[in-house]
Amino acid sequence: MRVAYQEIIQNLEKILLKNGFTEDRAKLCSILFTQASLDGVASHGLDRFPVFLEMIRKKLVLPNQEASILDSYGVFERWNGNLGPGPLNAYQCMDRAIQISKELGVGIVALQNTNHWMRAGNYGWQAAEAGCIGICFTNTKPNMPAWGGSEPKLGNNPLVIAIPHSDGHIVLDMAMSQFSYGKLKTYLREGKEMPFDAGFDADGNLTKSPESVIANELALPVGLWKGAGLSLLLDMLATILSGGKSTFQVGESGEEFSLSQVFICLDAEKIGIKEWSEEKLDAIISDLQSSSTFVGSEIRYPGGKIPEIRKQNMEHGIPVDEKIWKSIIKEL
Amino acid sequence: MRVAYQEIIQNLEKILLKNGFTEDRAKLCSILFTQASLDGVASHGLDRFPVFLEMIRKKLVLPNQEASILDSYGVFERWNGNLGPGPLNAYQCMDRAIQISKELGVGIVALQNTNHWMRAGNYGWQAAEAGCIGICFTNTKPNMPAWGGSEPKLGNNPLVIAIPHSDGHIVLDMAMSQFSYGKLKTYLREGKEMPFDAGFDADGNLTKSPESVIANELALPVGLWKGAGLSLLLDMLATILSGGKSTFQVGESGEEFSLSQVFICLDAEKIGIKEWSEEKLDAIISDLQSSSTFVGSEIRYPGGKIPEIRKQNMEHGIPVDEKIWKSIIKEL
Repeated sequence: MRVAYQEIIQNLEKILLKNGFTEDRAKLCSILFTQASLDGVASHGLDRFPVFLEMIRKKLVLPNQEASILDSYGVFERWNGNLGPGPLNAYQCMDRAIQISKELGVGIVALQNTNHWMRAGNYGWQAAEAGCIGICFTNTKPNMPAWGGSEPKLGNNPLVIAIPHSDGHIVLDMAMSQFSYGKLKTYLREGKEMPFDAGFDADGNLTKSPESVIANELALPVGLWKGAGLSLLLDMLATILSGGKSTFQVGESGEEFSLSQVFICLDAEKIGIKEWSEEKLDAIISDLQSSSTFVGSEIRYPGGKIPEIRKQNMEHGIPVDEKIWKSIIKEL
Repeated sequence: MRVAYQEIIQNLEKILLKNGFTEDRAKLCSILFTQASLDGVASHGLDRFPVFLEMIRKKLVLPNQEASILDSYGVFERWNGNLGPGPLNAYQCMDRAIQISKELGVGIVALQNTNHWMRAGNYGWQAAEAGCIGICFTNTKPNMPAWGGSEPKLGNNPLVIAIPHSDGHIVLDMAMSQFSYGKLKTYLREGKEMPFDAGFDADGNLTKSPESVIANELALPVGLWKGAGLSLLLDMLATILSGGKSTFQVGESGEEFSLSQVFICLDAEKIGIKEWSEEKLDAIISDLQSSSTFVGSEIRYPGGKIPEIRKQNMEHGIPVDEKIWKSIIKEL
């Protein structure tokens, strides 16, 4: 089924108000959830809203705790998320990184003690909309093995790199696992194998079986030992820059809360790249799309499809899972 | 065979002096090549020295051109490599990023019109030795396909993330291809298949055959479409930040020169993370290494083996390929 953008936002807003959010915070939080579904990433949008409410009821997410500044060193600031809602904290800290970059060319905010930011790409779009290159990453609970390991030790630690571009921003939003557990579960429900190796079975062999990967919680790091290394370093950076918890500490509670995140902005105007940036990006994209292909398929680039998806969903309503939507409506 | 560290440096230095380098530059350049081999990365150390000399003879690498500043915006600077030797330009720009970060907490230098920096990790070690978190990346000529593409369009664009750590710095040095062409050629010579999928065959199927991957120049991006995306974004960032050439433009000449690079530093002391950084890193490493394993093998982390390799090679001499060493000695 499809539901209109405004209708979704209004409903989420009412529910958040009932759950202790102040008006402004309920509104922004609703927009951030809806934005994810609007852009075709329902897995980190509406699909997560029921879990988000559960986290609020467990008092792991505190609706009206705002992020507060801990330390300021000019370009670099450290903030405490005070266990507030992850999307609001992330939005606030990316906004702060944007502000710093508008003044100093570059702005970096490290955030400790925050919660799941839901769709990572939102904050990349936020930076790009403000005319900034935006880079951000978060740690997570342990959900991938170290290279050679037989238990989850690494987070899939999503990384976003966003570049402003007038024809639609270029936004890479990638977790360090080849497939998300959400995607694995979808294939499992449909009784299908994954199209590529997705993790390890109980004997440590690469497997395409979603059942096996889920059972062992051994999702495959992108690029095998390389993604395992990148995941580790992102966790280390988020932890030491924010002064917060690392993936293994997040894992200790059995719940995924109190995460560490980093937000980096470079303001295109302030560092003098505006005059050539568009032209150079267009040339790169045009060369990429001129590539010969094996299957005659179109070559895509990160974020390239989003303006069209957004337009379709604005016109025809946002696709929502009927079961999820019913469970949300019940909260009204 | 093994050759002593100092002996290698002295020989390289003499050869560079004969090839037009001034004394200081010959010395530093020799150290950077030797450092790579010392750390066990001969593929980007001594093994490349003959190719480096060839690039000098072709006048694609200009021995005494120094990098010069183009624009300064406080934290962010843009430099021109003036087609000087890649290792010297990279060292100079990472040094400049370190200096800026010592003053402002963060320093970013984008470098255009430079040459192959040889071993990427060197500049990560350089930053970490100076007490800085260092992040750097470079573009390359096209040597990987876009996702779905049947010709090389993306560079394997190495990325380095380095974190200072008193027990040996943590340095991730990863190209965006699962295996380097150097590694593919080694397996081909030995008549072996790669241990994991390494690229595509002429029909676009994943293959472990080094012969097939090399013939089609279709090395596999790490994490399939994810690494393809990351590679593209790194090229875009290097290009627009430096104002220099992108991967496809580098590819147009048929030679790999005039690259774009970015160097980022955060000074640990200046941003107030020194008091907890060691302890947090030790805890993460200790948790990682406590992982159960499938094969009883030790869990490694990026850079973790280097202090031991370095010690061994300092004591017993650096392993060098006999044929390569002979061809180098001939240049004396």
